[in-house]
Amino acid sequence: MSYDPQNIFAKILRGEIPCHKVFEDERVLSFMDIMPRSKGHLLVIPKAEARNLLDIAPDDLAALVQRVQRIAIAVKNALDADGITLQQFSESAGGQEVFHLHFHVLPRWDGVRITPHPAPKGDMAELADTAARIRAELGA
Amino acid sequence: MSYDPQNIFAKILRGEIPCHKVFEDERVLSFMDIMPRSKGHLLVIPKAEARNLLDIAPDDLAALVQRVQRIAIAVKNALDADGITLQQFSESAGGQEVFHLHFHVLPRWDGVRITPHPAPKGDMAELADTAARIRAELGA
Repeated sequence: MSYDPQNIFAKILRGEIPCHKVFEDERVLSFMDIMPRSKGHLLVIPKAEARNLLDIAPDDLAALVQRVQRIAIAVKNALDADGITLQQFSESAGGQEVFHLHFHVLPRWDGVRITPHPAPKGDMAELADTAARIRAELGA
Repeated sequence: MSYDPQNIFAKILRGEIPCHKVFEDERVLSFMDIMPRSKGHLLVIPKAEARNLLDIAPDDLAALVQRVQRIAIAVKNALDADGITLQQFSESAGGQEVFHLHFHVLPRWDGVRITPHPAPKGDMAELADTAARIRAELGA
């Protein structure tokens, strides 16, 4: 399977579509999932063109997952969550819908279940506020 | 939260409990999940003591996820799967039940859903056979 540069995350990376940005450096971009399955549900994607786990260069994958860890710790602290669920889907059979590699980071609280997919679209003001809280934690 | 060396995966790492081994090197061990939620469901764990995503050393995490990728590709090829679902749970609220960091690698096929957790215990002969097929693919 080849990489399609017209996927929506490629458009976000190029700035053609806005996002609620959480983190950005030379290797990755992280932003809020607009259909959050838990409060603070965010995505972390590589800047490198990669369809999914099956084709990313190992060095890009290592850099990506190290950012995933840093962001997961930050969102857990920022939102006072009790745990984190990480998900990554490769190919349609695996649950993938946007064909640019992305890790889902889902903050979790004791006794609170994840909203089944597809979750309703989140409130934009709340997403913006949550993103700001996570950015502040990352900057601390 | 601290690391408890009496968790079941630590016992597997020490050889105190058997497993259907898929892969082992100096950094990681991979073995079949004995309650498979899809055919070929396996786990990849670091040899380093780490409770979950929140406390593993970034270098150990990078090494781990690079093995996750290699093993995911191998299991997909060995079982002719259509996709892969990756899951990682940190803390009880996040879905974690064994407190040694592990990535779940779930081979997926079009139109086939994951068995809900907790899945029934798998057939030991089938797990052994599947592990052998994945090991053969990794050795190729």
